[in-house]
Amino acid sequence: MKSFIQFSPGPSQLYFTVEDHIRNALRNDVASLSHRSKAFEKIYQSTADGLKALLGVPAEWNVLFTSSATEIWERIIENLVDEKSHHFVNGAFSHRFYEIAQQLKRNPSLTFAAAGGGFSDYHIPPGTEVIALTHNETSTGASLPMDFIHAFRSVHPDALITVDAVSSLPYPAFDYTKIDSAYFSVQKAFGMPAGLGVWLVNSRCLAKAEQRLARGYSVGSYHSLVSLVSHAVKYQTPETPNVMGIYVLGKVVEDMLRRGVTTIRRETDYKAAILYQALEQHPKVKPFVTDKSIQSRTVIVANTGEHTERLTAFLNEKGISPGDGYGAARNSQLRFANFPAHSKEQFELLVDCLHEFC
Amino acid sequence: MKSFIQFSPGPSQLYFTVEDHIRNALRNDVASLSHRSKAFEKIYQSTADGLKALLGVPAEWNVLFTSSATEIWERIIENLVDEKSHHFVNGAFSHRFYEIAQQLKRNPSLTFAAAGGGFSDYHIPPGTEVIALTHNETSTGASLPMDFIHAFRSVHPDALITVDAVSSLPYPAFDYTKIDSAYFSVQKAFGMPAGLGVWLVNSRCLAKAEQRLARGYSVGSYHSLVSLVSHAVKYQTPETPNVMGIYVLGKVVEDMLRRGVTTIRRETDYKAAILYQALEQHPKVKPFVTDKSIQSRTVIVANTGEHTERLTAFLNEKGISPGDGYGAARNSQLRFANFPAHSKEQFELLVDCLHEFC
Repeated sequence: MKSFIQFSPGPSQLYFTVEDHIRNALRNDVASLSHRSKAFEKIYQSTADGLKALLGVPAEWNVLFTSSATEIWERIIENLVDEKSHHFVNGAFSHRFYEIAQQLKRNPSLTFAAAGGGFSDYHIPPGTEVIALTHNETSTGASLPMDFIHAFRSVHPDALITVDAVSSLPYPAFDYTKIDSAYFSVQKAFGMPAGLGVWLVNSRCLAKAEQRLARGYSVGSYHSLVSLVSHAVKYQTPETPNVMGIYVLGKVVEDMLRRGVTTIRRETDYKAAILYQALEQHPKVKPFVTDKSIQSRTVIVANTGEHTERLTAFLNEKGISPGDGYGAARNSQLRFANFPAHSKEQFELLVDCLHEFC
Repeated sequence: MKSFIQFSPGPSQLYFTVEDHIRNALRNDVASLSHRSKAFEKIYQSTADGLKALLGVPAEWNVLFTSSATEIWERIIENLVDEKSHHFVNGAFSHRFYEIAQQLKRNPSLTFAAAGGGFSDYHIPPGTEVIALTHNETSTGASLPMDFIHAFRSVHPDALITVDAVSSLPYPAFDYTKIDSAYFSVQKAFGMPAGLGVWLVNSRCLAKAEQRLARGYSVGSYHSLVSLVSHAVKYQTPETPNVMGIYVLGKVVEDMLRRGVTTIRRETDYKAAILYQALEQHPKVKPFVTDKSIQSRTVIVANTGEHTERLTAFLNEKGISPGDGYGAARNSQLRFANFPAHSKEQFELLVDCLHEFC
């Protein structure tokens, strides 16, 4: 197989150091390690502490491991919602979360925005227990402004505010006093093989799950929030987890801490800026999201229309593999992940290729 | 870290070829592969077809991927049980499945046997929807005889019969016309890093989940049986799965097919026989399970009593890492996995060491 620069938004390009960490894990028998051993607890603690340091998550929050962010959607509804969750839906993934609430027989509501658009006005029903925000809608490349996310707390102090940051963390610097949960999966911006979701929760989430349990509701079984947290405080997991994934994530986080999250964010801004500029100036392809205040920095979507197939072939020729447009946009858009694994040089090459394409 | 022969029953020793397959996966960009690509579908199909060939699973069954066997316990209850599951409980893991049914607010019943013992007589309540059998209780090393497993179908034709073979497959040659589901996780006898469960189901299971859905019950969301199967028929998964794990499993299965399942089963019998014989003849340590008809071939548990710590140190000295006893038996038993990754030579070394220990 020819090796391409992978711009697909996930699974995406591996972070520079991932292969080495996997090799070291194999060499050090990490894959044969009992998940009930002290050695595993040290790995869990190191990964959790590193993530908190990298992302600025308060010490008292819990770092929980699931198999995917899709699983986290299900666990949020099972644990935090008796009846009412409210979903801000502006693409396929935020909509999927809304559907999961329906499948779990809750009564969710939604505020809808057109693909690639932002939310102007909205009504959140009284008694809403969870406000579900998607920081970065991977299907369209539309982001929520940070001010928008942070504004809910004061107006809806009783609701739990959950933030899907699947394809953006570690880029966004959330104010964790203004939200109750954030989550991501490692195959996006952490540049790892898929098979691990990370769920950050505060004590308000745990309290809600405990209340639901006390009132006789099911909150799930092994991956209920109560079960996950009761193990996490000992740096353990309820089941045999993806031990290698947790180990490799910890090592990638160490690497990112050495590089510095400020540097990562600054480089992300730079790479996004040159790509958006190239798209804006291009005669044939344009940014899909035109409102600059909601243009994602980490998943950049281009309207490529009738040129899609030809542009894909042109980029492939140059060793670049763009991500397909999502769903119905498969033949009219391309998506470009802008993750820490993508170097400035790779983005400069991408931009040069776009300039050449006519 | 010094490299030991890992006899812990899981995560256990890696299968001989696993490291090479992981290296090849990295070299071939498997970790960056989209789970919506044709290349992924080929991997899924190859792994599923290989597993069916290896285990003798009928072509019309579905091979589904979850994150763990613990997850499969939850999915079985969510999808197949309105109210009544009946559990044969003879250890910690079969009991955990029973508890999950309780946590999901069903009304499970159980037949109990003492740890290390078998089931003599039992009563299955009328209207039982699922009969939950644990072929190999990993905590105690007690197995269910194959005749026992295969006898339920004719007496309880309406019940779905599910078989936990977490720490035994590919060893047992089930008659798949006599059961409806079997499942395992890859970190046991398939010798892989943890983070992948395999759920084999027939059409009767799917029909039950569809009925439950039609009657307005929740069967879960992304990993409902209906969702899993609707994707599996296209060799896809509902969420981004552990792609590397599915790839490596397929390659390990290819290796096992080349070696031949008959050879694997014969070698398993040989290794179990020499270890049980060594334990029976030993003056200080004895097999925990004494009834030969239920002695597990794949997880062999020794009563080591007051000698536990000294024997562990003695074996460590020889480069052998035994598995701790489970739970309360942690200081009085040792467990020895007998998986395809454990060679005859390694078992002969283990037996020699036991002979030396006095």
